[in-house]
Amino acid sequence: MIPHDHPRYQSLVTREHLAECARSGIVSWEGLISHGRGEAFDYLLGEKTSDSARRAARVAAALLRTARYPVISVNGNTAALAAREIAGLQKASGALVEVNLFHRTPERVAQIESLLCDAGADVFSGEAERLLPLSHDRAWCRRDGMYRADVVLVPLEDGDRCGVLVEMGKKVIAIDLNPLSRTARTATLTIVDEVTRALPLIAEACATLSAEECRELVAMLDNRVFLKEAGIEMAGRLSHALD
Amino acid sequence: MIPHDHPRYQSLVTREHLAECARSGIVSWEGLISHGRGEAFDYLLGEKTSDSARRAARVAAALLRTARYPVISVNGNTAALAAREIAGLQKASGALVEVNLFHRTPERVAQIESLLCDAGADVFSGEAERLLPLSHDRAWCRRDGMYRADVVLVPLEDGDRCGVLVEMGKKVIAIDLNPLSRTARTATLTIVDEVTRALPLIAEACATLSAEECRELVAMLDNRVFLKEAGIEMAGRLSHALD
Repeated sequence: MIPHDHPRYQSLVTREHLAECARSGIVSWEGLISHGRGEAFDYLLGEKTSDSARRAARVAAALLRTARYPVISVNGNTAALAAREIAGLQKASGALVEVNLFHRTPERVAQIESLLCDAGADVFSGEAERLLPLSHDRAWCRRDGMYRADVVLVPLEDGDRCGVLVEMGKKVIAIDLNPLSRTARTATLTIVDEVTRALPLIAEACATLSAEECRELVAMLDNRVFLKEAGIEMAGRLSHALD
Repeated sequence: MIPHDHPRYQSLVTREHLAECARSGIVSWEGLISHGRGEAFDYLLGEKTSDSARRAARVAAALLRTARYPVISVNGNTAALAAREIAGLQKASGALVEVNLFHRTPERVAQIESLLCDAGADVFSGEAERLLPLSHDRAWCRRDGMYRADVVLVPLEDGDRCGVLVEMGKKVIAIDLNPLSRTARTATLTIVDEVTRALPLIAEACATLSAEECRELVAMLDNRVFLKEAGIEMAGRLSHALD
Protein backbone atom coordinates (compact mmCIF):
# COMPACT_ATOMS: atom_id res chain seq x y z
CA MET A 1 0.00 0.00 0.00
CA ILE A 2 1.32 3.42 -0.94
CA PRO A 3 1.42 5.98 1.90
CA HIS A 4 -0.87 8.96 1.19
CA ASP A 5 1.79 11.34 2.45
CA HIS A 6 4.20 10.33 -0.30
CA PRO A 7 4.94 13.40 -2.48
CA ARG A 8 4.71 11.33 -5.67
CA TYR A 9 1.43 9.66 -4.69
CA GLN A 10 -0.33 9.94 -8.10
CA SER A 11 2.64 8.69 -10.03
CA LEU A 12 2.99 5.76 -7.60
CA VAL A 13 -0.70 4.87 -8.01
CA THR A 14 -0.28 4.67 -11.80
CA ARG A 15 2.83 2.55 -11.30
CA GLU A 16 0.93 0.19 -9.02
CA HIS A 17 -1.85 -0.10 -11.64
CA LEU A 18 0.72 -1.01 -14.29
CA ALA A 19 2.35 -3.54 -11.94
CA GLU A 20 -1.11 -5.05 -11.44
CA CYS A 21 -1.51 -5.24 -15.24
CA ALA A 22 1.90 -6.93 -15.43
CA ARG A 23 0.79 -9.55 -12.90
CA SER A 24 -2.30 -10.27 -15.01
CA GLY A 25 -0.27 -10.45 -18.23
CA ILE A 26 -1.57 -7.33 -20.02
CA VAL A 27 1.72 -5.48 -19.60
CA SER A 28 5.04 -7.20 -20.23
CA TRP A 29 7.96 -6.92 -17.80
CA GLU A 30 9.80 -4.87 -20.34
CA GLY A 31 6.68 -2.72 -20.67
CA LEU A 32 7.12 -1.66 -17.05
CA ILE A 33 10.65 -0.47 -17.84
CA SER A 34 9.37 1.43 -20.89
CA HIS A 35 6.83 3.14 -18.68
CA GLY A 36 9.64 4.31 -16.40
CA ARG A 37 11.47 5.83 -19.38
CA GLY A 38 8.31 7.69 -20.30
CA GLU A 39 7.89 8.93 -16.73
CA ALA A 40 11.36 10.45 -16.80
CA PHE A 41 10.73 12.42 -19.97
CA ASP A 42 7.26 13.46 -18.77
CA TYR A 43 8.91 14.79 -15.62
CA LEU A 44 11.06 16.97 -17.89
CA LEU A 45 7.89 18.20 -19.61
CA GLY A 46 6.50 19.23 -16.20
CA GLU A 47 3.89 16.46 -16.63
CA LYS A 48 1.76 18.67 -18.86
CA THR A 49 1.04 19.03 -22.57
CA SER A 50 3.19 21.67 -24.24
CA ASP A 51 1.80 24.09 -26.81
CA SER A 52 3.93 22.30 -29.39
CA ALA A 53 2.40 18.89 -28.56
CA ARG A 54 -1.06 20.47 -28.71
CA ARG A 55 -0.35 21.59 -32.28
CA ALA A 56 1.07 18.15 -33.14
CA ALA A 57 -2.15 16.55 -31.90
CA ARG A 58 -4.12 18.70 -34.37
CA VAL A 59 -1.87 17.54 -37.21
CA ALA A 60 -2.39 13.93 -36.09
CA ALA A 61 -6.13 14.46 -36.29
CA ALA A 62 -5.70 15.91 -39.79
CA LEU A 63 -3.69 12.83 -40.88
CA LEU A 64 -6.33 10.45 -39.51
CA ARG A 65 -9.18 12.47 -41.05
CA THR A 66 -7.58 12.57 -44.51
CA ALA A 67 -6.56 8.87 -44.48
CA ARG A 68 -8.24 6.26 -46.65
CA TYR A 69 -7.53 3.46 -44.21
CA PRO A 70 -6.44 4.67 -40.76
CA VAL A 71 -5.40 2.13 -38.14
CA ILE A 72 -4.66 2.58 -34.42
CA SER A 73 -2.12 -0.02 -33.29
CA VAL A 74 -2.42 -0.87 -29.58
CA ASN A 75 0.14 -2.61 -27.38
CA GLY A 76 -0.02 -3.73 -23.73
CA ASN A 77 1.04 -0.47 -22.12
CA THR A 78 -1.36 1.59 -24.24
CA ALA A 79 -4.26 -0.71 -23.37
CA ALA A 80 -3.37 -0.67 -19.66
CA LEU A 81 -3.03 3.11 -19.50
CA ALA A 82 -5.55 4.35 -22.05
CA ALA A 83 -8.17 1.80 -23.20
CA ARG A 84 -11.00 4.33 -22.81
CA GLU A 85 -9.06 7.05 -24.63
CA ILE A 86 -8.40 4.62 -27.51
CA ALA A 87 -12.13 3.87 -27.72
CA GLY A 88 -12.87 7.61 -27.71
CA LEU A 89 -10.40 8.31 -30.52
CA GLN A 90 -11.80 5.44 -32.55
CA LYS A 91 -15.27 6.98 -32.34
CA ALA A 92 -13.97 10.42 -33.33
CA SER A 93 -11.71 9.23 -36.18
CA GLY A 94 -13.37 6.08 -37.55
CA ALA A 95 -10.00 4.29 -37.43
CA LEU A 96 -9.57 0.55 -37.11
CA VAL A 97 -8.23 -0.55 -33.71
CA GLU A 98 -5.79 -3.48 -33.89
CA VAL A 99 -3.62 -5.11 -31.20
CA ASN A 100 0.08 -5.51 -32.11
CA LEU A 101 2.53 -6.71 -29.49
CA PHE A 102 6.29 -6.84 -29.17
CA HIS A 103 6.04 -9.76 -26.72
CA ARG A 104 3.29 -11.66 -28.50
CA THR A 105 1.34 -14.67 -27.27
CA PRO A 106 -2.21 -15.55 -28.37
CA GLU A 107 -3.31 -15.26 -24.71
CA ARG A 108 -1.93 -11.74 -24.33
CA VAL A 109 -3.54 -10.66 -27.61
CA ALA A 110 -6.92 -12.01 -26.45
CA GLN A 111 -6.57 -10.40 -23.01
CA ILE A 112 -5.77 -6.99 -24.45
CA GLU A 113 -8.52 -7.23 -27.07
CA SER A 114 -10.98 -8.01 -24.32
CA LEU A 115 -9.76 -5.05 -22.21
CA LEU A 116 -10.25 -2.73 -25.19
CA CYS A 117 -13.73 -4.12 -25.92
CA ASP A 118 -14.73 -3.59 -22.28
CA ALA A 119 -13.64 0.03 -22.64
CA GLY A 120 -15.95 0.48 -25.64
CA ALA A 121 -13.57 -0.06 -28.56
CA ASP A 122 -14.58 -2.05 -31.65
CA VAL A 123 -11.49 -4.25 -32.07
CA PHE A 124 -10.39 -5.63 -35.44
CA SER A 125 -9.20 -9.14 -34.70
CA GLY A 126 -8.69 -12.40 -36.58
CA GLU A 127 -5.67 -14.24 -37.94
CA ALA A 128 -2.35 -12.41 -37.91
CA GLU A 129 0.49 -13.20 -40.36
CA ARG A 130 4.23 -12.52 -40.41
CA LEU A 131 3.96 -9.65 -42.85
CA LEU A 132 6.53 -7.08 -41.69
CA PRO A 133 10.24 -7.49 -42.56
CA LEU A 134 11.34 -7.75 -38.92
CA SER A 135 12.80 -10.47 -36.78
CA HIS A 136 11.01 -11.27 -33.55
CA ASP A 137 7.31 -11.20 -32.81
CA ARG A 138 7.11 -7.63 -34.04
CA ALA A 139 6.73 -8.98 -37.61
CA TRP A 140 3.16 -10.07 -36.98
CA CYS A 141 0.18 -8.06 -38.14
CA ARG A 142 -3.09 -8.50 -40.01
CA ARG A 143 -3.41 -8.25 -43.79
CA ASP A 144 -6.58 -6.16 -43.55
CA GLY A 145 -5.30 -4.20 -40.57
CA MET A 146 -1.97 -2.45 -40.14
CA TYR A 147 -0.57 -4.04 -43.34
CA ARG A 148 -3.18 -2.33 -45.52
CA ALA A 149 -3.25 0.99 -43.63
CA ASP A 150 -2.11 4.27 -45.20
CA VAL A 151 -1.99 6.07 -41.83
CA VAL A 152 -1.05 4.23 -38.64
CA LEU A 153 -1.16 5.69 -35.14
CA VAL A 154 1.37 3.87 -32.95
CA PRO A 155 1.33 5.05 -29.35
CA LEU A 156 4.44 3.90 -27.43
CA GLU A 157 5.95 2.02 -30.39
CA ASP A 158 9.24 0.22 -30.87
CA GLY A 159 11.68 2.06 -33.17
CA ASP A 160 12.19 -0.80 -35.62
CA ARG A 161 8.53 -1.33 -36.36
CA CYS A 162 8.01 2.38 -36.77
CA GLY A 163 10.84 2.48 -39.34
CA VAL A 164 9.50 -0.49 -41.29
CA LEU A 165 6.02 1.01 -41.48
CA VAL A 166 7.45 4.26 -42.85
CA GLU A 167 9.51 2.31 -45.42
CA MET A 168 6.31 0.57 -46.52
CA GLY A 169 5.01 3.99 -47.50
CA LYS A 170 2.68 4.52 -44.59
CA LYS A 171 2.28 7.74 -42.68
CA VAL A 172 3.11 6.92 -39.09
CA ILE A 173 1.94 8.97 -36.12
CA ALA A 174 3.87 8.21 -32.94
CA ILE A 175 3.10 9.25 -29.39
CA ASP A 176 6.48 9.18 -27.66
CA LEU A 177 7.73 11.13 -24.65
CA ASN A 178 11.36 10.79 -25.77
CA PRO A 179 12.01 13.29 -28.58
CA LEU A 180 15.40 11.65 -29.26
CA SER A 181 14.11 8.09 -29.67
CA ARG A 182 14.35 6.30 -33.00
CA THR A 183 10.57 6.09 -33.06
CA ALA A 184 10.23 9.83 -32.56
CA ARG A 185 12.77 10.63 -35.29
CA THR A 186 11.50 8.05 -37.78
CA ALA A 187 7.78 8.70 -37.56
CA THR A 188 6.03 10.99 -40.02
CA LEU A 189 4.66 12.88 -37.02
CA THR A 190 5.52 12.56 -33.34
CA ILE A 191 3.40 13.88 -30.51
CA VAL A 192 5.80 14.29 -27.59
CA ASP A 193 3.27 13.88 -24.82
CA GLU A 194 1.86 11.39 -22.35
CA VAL A 195 -0.59 9.02 -24.04
CA THR A 196 -3.67 9.65 -21.85
CA ARG A 197 -3.27 13.40 -22.39
CA ALA A 198 -2.55 13.18 -26.13
CA LEU A 199 -5.30 10.80 -27.28
CA PRO A 200 -8.26 12.99 -26.13
CA LEU A 201 -6.64 16.02 -27.81
CA ILE A 202 -6.46 14.15 -31.13
CA ALA A 203 -10.07 13.02 -30.72
CA GLU A 204 -11.22 16.56 -29.99
CA ALA A 205 -9.41 17.91 -33.06
CA CYS A 206 -10.90 15.12 -35.24
CA ALA A 207 -14.33 16.41 -34.28
CA THR A 208 -13.66 20.10 -34.86
CA LEU A 209 -11.23 20.53 -37.80
CA SER A 210 -12.69 21.43 -41.20
CA ALA A 211 -11.65 19.45 -44.30
CA GLU A 212 -9.78 22.54 -45.51
CA GLU A 213 -7.85 22.87 -42.22
CA CYS A 214 -6.98 19.16 -42.39
CA ARG A 215 -5.44 19.55 -45.86
CA GLU A 216 -3.44 22.60 -44.78
CA LEU A 217 -2.10 20.97 -41.62
CA VAL A 218 -0.99 17.86 -43.54
CA ALA A 219 0.66 19.94 -46.26
CA MET A 220 2.67 21.97 -43.75
CA LEU A 221 3.77 19.03 -41.57
CA ASP A 222 7.43 19.17 -40.48
CA ASN A 223 8.16 16.71 -37.68
CA ARG A 224 11.63 18.11 -36.97
CA VAL A 225 10.05 21.29 -35.65
CA PHE A 226 7.94 19.39 -33.11
CA LEU A 227 10.93 17.34 -31.92
CA LYS A 228 13.14 20.39 -31.66
CA GLU A 229 10.51 22.27 -29.64
CA ALA A 230 10.07 19.33 -27.27
CA GLY A 231 13.85 19.03 -26.78
CA ILE A 232 14.15 22.74 -25.99
CA GLU A 233 11.23 22.58 -23.54
CA MET A 234 12.87 19.70 -21.64
CA ALA A 235 16.37 21.18 -21.81
CA GLY A 236 15.06 24.38 -20.27
CA ARG A 237 13.72 22.51 -17.27
CA LEU A 238 16.97 20.59 -16.85
CA SER A 239 19.20 23.64 -16.99
CA HIS A 240 17.06 26.08 -14.99
CA ALA A 241 15.46 23.89 -12.31
CA LEU A 242 18.83 23.69 -10.58
CA ASP A 243 19.62 27.42 -10.55
CA MET B 1 14.56 -13.82 -27.22
CA ILE B 2 16.00 -10.48 -28.26
CA PRO B 3 17.07 -10.22 -31.93
CA HIS B 4 20.81 -9.57 -32.23
CA ASP B 5 20.17 -7.02 -34.97
CA HIS B 6 18.24 -4.78 -32.59
CA PRO B 7 20.06 -1.43 -32.32
CA ARG B 8 19.47 -1.29 -28.54
CA TYR B 9 20.64 -4.89 -27.97
CA GLN B 10 22.75 -4.26 -24.84
CA SER B 11 20.10 -2.18 -23.15
CA LEU B 12 17.49 -4.87 -23.95
CA VAL B 13 19.72 -7.59 -22.48
CA THR B 14 20.01 -5.65 -19.21
CA ARG B 15 16.25 -5.18 -19.23
CA GLU B 16 15.70 -8.89 -19.72
CA HIS B 17 18.07 -9.62 -16.82
CA LEU B 18 16.07 -7.27 -14.58
CA ALA B 19 12.79 -8.83 -15.72
CA GLU B 20 14.29 -12.21 -14.78
CA CYS B 21 15.18 -10.79 -11.35
CA ALA B 22 11.60 -9.52 -11.02
CA ARG B 23 10.27 -13.00 -11.75
CA SER B 24 12.49 -14.45 -9.02
CA GLY B 25 11.49 -11.71 -6.54
CA ILE B 26 14.81 -9.85 -6.24
CA VAL B 27 13.48 -6.81 -8.10
CA SER B 28 10.03 -5.39 -7.36
CA TRP B 29 7.57 -4.46 -10.12
CA GLU B 30 8.04 -0.84 -9.22
CA GLY B 31 11.79 -1.43 -9.39
CA LEU B 32 11.44 -2.22 -13.10
CA ILE B 33 9.74 1.14 -13.64
CA SER B 34 12.49 2.91 -11.69
CA HIS B 35 15.06 1.25 -13.91
CA GLY B 36 13.29 2.70 -16.94
CA ARG B 37 13.46 6.19 -15.46
CA GLY B 38 17.18 5.71 -14.94
CA GLU B 39 17.60 4.50 -18.53
CA ALA B 40 16.03 7.70 -19.83
CA PHE B 41 18.39 9.96 -17.91
CA ASP B 42 21.38 7.78 -18.80
CA TYR B 43 20.41 8.16 -22.45
CA LEU B 44 20.67 11.92 -21.93
CA LEU B 45 24.15 11.43 -20.45
CA GLY B 46 25.17 9.56 -23.60
CA GLU B 47 25.41 6.41 -21.43
CA LYS B 48 28.82 7.42 -20.17
CA THR B 49 30.31 8.91 -17.01
CA SER B 50 30.74 12.68 -17.23
CA ASP B 51 33.82 14.45 -15.90
CA SER B 52 31.61 15.95 -13.24
CA ALA B 53 30.38 12.52 -12.04
CA ARG B 54 33.98 11.31 -12.03
CA ARG B 55 34.87 14.12 -9.63
CA ALA B 56 31.78 13.37 -7.50
CA ALA B 57 32.90 9.73 -7.22
CA ARG B 58 36.23 10.92 -5.74
CA VAL B 59 34.37 13.02 -3.18
CA ALA B 60 32.21 9.97 -2.33
CA ALA B 61 35.37 7.97 -1.70
CA ALA B 62 36.65 10.76 0.54
CA LEU B 63 33.41 10.72 2.56
CA LEU B 64 33.58 6.95 3.00
CA ARG B 65 37.27 7.04 3.90
CA THR B 66 36.83 9.77 6.53
CA ALA B 67 33.69 8.18 8.06
CA ARG B 68 33.72 6.58 11.49
CA TYR B 69 30.91 4.17 10.59
CA PRO B 70 30.18 4.00 6.83
CA VAL B 71 27.26 1.89 5.58
CA ILE B 72 26.29 0.90 2.03
CA SER B 73 22.51 0.44 1.82
CA VAL B 74 21.47 -2.00 -0.91
CA ASN B 75 18.02 -2.44 -2.46
CA GLY B 76 16.70 -4.93 -5.03
CA ASN B 77 17.71 -3.03 -8.16
CA THR B 78 21.22 -2.35 -6.87
CA ALA B 79 21.71 -6.03 -5.99
CA ALA B 80 20.37 -7.17 -9.37
CA LEU B 81 22.51 -4.75 -11.35
CA ALA B 82 25.67 -4.42 -9.29
CA ALA B 83 26.20 -7.10 -6.60
CA ARG B 84 29.86 -7.60 -7.62
CA GLU B 85 30.52 -3.85 -7.70
CA ILE B 86 29.03 -3.54 -4.18
CA ALA B 87 31.35 -6.30 -2.94
CA GLY B 88 34.30 -4.54 -4.59
CA LEU B 89 33.47 -1.21 -2.99
CA GLN B 90 33.06 -2.86 0.40
CA LYS B 91 36.57 -4.27 0.13
CA ALA B 92 37.99 -0.90 -0.89
CA SER B 93 36.12 1.17 1.71
CA GLY B 94 35.58 -1.15 4.67
CA ALA B 95 31.93 -0.11 4.82
CA LEU B 96 29.15 -2.24 6.24
CA VAL B 97 26.77 -3.62 3.57
CA GLU B 98 23.12 -3.73 4.65
CA VAL B 99 19.95 -4.58 2.72
CA ASN B 100 17.14 -2.00 3.02
CA LEU B 101 14.04 -2.38 0.87
CA PHE B 102 11.09 -0.17 -0.05
CA HIS B 103 8.94 -3.25 -0.70
CA ARG B 104 10.10 -5.32 2.23
CA THR B 105 9.37 -8.97 2.97
CA PRO B 106 11.65 -11.28 4.99
CA GLU B 107 11.93 -13.53 1.91
CA ARG B 108 13.10 -10.69 -0.35
CA VAL B 109 15.63 -9.53 2.25
CA ALA B 110 17.03 -13.08 2.52
CA GLN B 111 17.13 -13.51 -1.27
CA ILE B 112 19.01 -10.26 -1.80
CA GLU B 113 21.41 -10.95 1.07
CA SER B 114 22.20 -14.30 -0.48
CA LEU B 115 22.78 -12.72 -3.92
CA LEU B 116 25.22 -10.24 -2.35
CA CYS B 117 27.06 -12.98 -0.43
CA ASP B 118 27.42 -15.02 -3.63
CA ALA B 119 29.01 -11.98 -5.24
CA GLY B 120 31.58 -11.78 -2.45
CA ALA B 121 30.05 -9.20 -0.10
CA ASP B 122 30.12 -9.60 3.68
CA VAL B 123 26.50 -8.71 4.50
CA PHE B 124 25.46 -7.25 7.85
CA SER B 125 22.19 -8.96 8.67
CA GLY B 126 20.11 -9.70 11.76
CA GLU B 127 16.96 -8.23 13.27
CA ALA B 128 15.64 -5.00 11.76
CA GLU B 129 13.51 -2.49 13.70
CA ARG B 130 11.17 0.36 12.75
CA LEU B 131 13.70 3.06 13.53
CA LEU B 132 13.22 5.72 10.84
CA PRO B 133 10.37 8.27 11.10
CA LEU B 134 8.66 7.11 7.88
CA SER B 135 5.39 5.42 7.06
CA HIS B 136 5.60 2.26 4.97
CA ASP B 137 8.25 -0.44 5.02
CA ARG B 138 10.93 2.18 4.42
CA ALA B 139 11.06 2.80 8.19
CA TRP B 140 12.86 -0.49 8.85
CA CYS B 141 16.59 -0.64 9.43
CA ARG B 142 19.10 -2.15 11.83
CA ARG B 143 20.26 -0.41 15.02
CA ASP B 144 23.89 -1.30 14.42
CA GLY B 145 23.62 -0.70 10.68
CA MET B 146 22.18 2.29 8.85
CA TYR B 147 20.75 3.73 12.10
CA ARG B 148 24.20 4.12 13.63
CA ALA B 149 26.05 5.18 10.47
CA ASP B 150 27.58 8.62 10.05
CA VAL B 151 27.99 8.20 6.27
CA VAL B 152 25.48 6.19 4.21
CA LEU B 153 25.82 5.36 0.52
CA VAL B 154 22.35 4.86 -0.95
CA PRO B 155 22.44 3.86 -4.61
CA LEU B 156 19.02 4.26 -6.28
CA GLU B 157 17.28 5.50 -3.13
CA ASP B 158 13.78 6.77 -2.47
CA GLY B 159 13.59 10.54 -1.80
CA ASP B 160 11.85 10.28 1.57
CA ARG B 161 14.37 7.96 3.13
CA CYS B 162 17.23 10.05 1.84
CA GLY B 163 15.68 13.14 3.46
CA VAL B 164 15.15 11.41 6.80
CA LEU B 165 18.73 10.15 6.89
CA VAL B 166 20.03 13.68 6.26
CA GLU B 167 17.75 15.04 9.03
CA MET B 168 19.22 12.44 11.37
CA GLY B 169 22.58 14.16 10.84
CA LYS B 170 24.08 11.58 8.53
CA LYS B 171 26.07 12.37 5.42
CA VAL B 172 24.22 10.71 2.56
CA ILE B 173 25.83 9.80 -0.76
CA ALA B 174 23.27 9.09 -3.49
CA ILE B 175 23.83 7.56 -6.90
CA ASP B 176 20.95 8.87 -8.97
CA LEU B 177 20.68 9.44 -12.72
CA ASN B 178 17.99 12.10 -12.28
CA PRO B 179 19.65 15.34 -11.16
CA LEU B 180 16.21 16.85 -10.42
CA SER B 181 14.97 14.07 -8.13
CA ARG B 182 14.29 14.72 -4.47
CA THR B 183 16.98 12.18 -3.61
CA ALA B 184 19.54 13.98 -5.76
CA ARG B 185 18.70 17.39 -4.25
CA THR B 186 18.46 16.18 -0.65
CA ALA B 187 21.60 14.06 -0.46
CA THR B 188 24.85 15.49 0.89
CA LEU B 189 26.49 14.33 -2.33
CA THR B 190 24.92 12.97 -5.52
CA ILE B 191 26.79 11.07 -8.19
CA VAL B 192 24.71 11.49 -11.33
CA ASP B 193 25.80 8.32 -13.06
CA GLU B 194 24.76 4.74 -13.73
CA VAL B 195 25.36 2.52 -10.70
CA THR B 196 27.63 -0.11 -12.32
CA ARG B 197 29.85 2.64 -13.69
CA ALA B 198 29.90 4.75 -10.51
CA LEU B 199 30.65 2.08 -7.89
CA PRO B 200 34.03 0.95 -9.35
CA LEU B 201 35.09 4.60 -9.66
CA ILE B 202 34.41 5.15 -5.95
CA ALA B 203 36.28 1.94 -5.10
CA GLU B 204 39.25 3.01 -7.21
CA ALA B 205 39.38 6.42 -5.52
CA CYS B 206 39.13 4.80 -2.06
CA ALA B 207 42.32 2.92 -2.85
CA THR B 208 44.30 5.86 -4.25
CA LEU B 209 43.34 9.06 -2.35
CA SER B 210 45.65 10.27 0.42
CA ALA B 211 44.22 11.21 3.83
CA GLU B 212 45.03 14.84 3.07
CA GLU B 213 43.20 14.71 -0.28
CA CYS B 214 40.20 13.13 1.46
CA ARG B 215 39.98 15.99 3.99
CA GLU B 216 40.25 18.61 1.23
CA LEU B 217 37.60 16.99 -0.95
CA VAL B 218 35.15 16.74 1.97
CA ALA B 219 35.79 20.35 3.04
CA MET B 220 35.11 21.68 -0.48
CA LEU B 221 31.99 19.61 -1.16
CA ASP B 222 29.13 21.53 -2.85
CA ASN B 223 26.49 19.20 -4.22
CA ARG B 224 24.67 21.97 -6.14
CA VAL B 225 27.62 22.23 -8.50
CA PHE B 226 27.47 18.53 -9.39
CA LEU B 227 23.69 18.67 -9.98
CA LYS B 228 23.98 21.82 -12.07
CA GLU B 229 26.74 20.30 -14.22
CA ALA B 230 24.71 17.13 -14.78
CA GLY B 231 21.63 19.15 -15.76
CA ILE B 232 23.64 21.21 -18.24
CA GLU B 233 25.23 18.08 -19.75
CA MET B 234 21.80 16.51 -20.33
CA ALA B 235 20.20 19.73 -21.53
CA GLY B 236 22.93 20.09 -24.13
CA ARG B 237 22.17 16.68 -25.56
CA LEU B 238 18.43 17.43 -25.65
CA SER B 239 18.76 20.74 -27.37
CA HIS B 240 21.54 19.91 -29.85
CA ALA B 241 20.84 16.29 -30.81
CA LEU B 242 17.89 17.51 -32.86
CA ASP B 243 19.72 20.24 -34.80
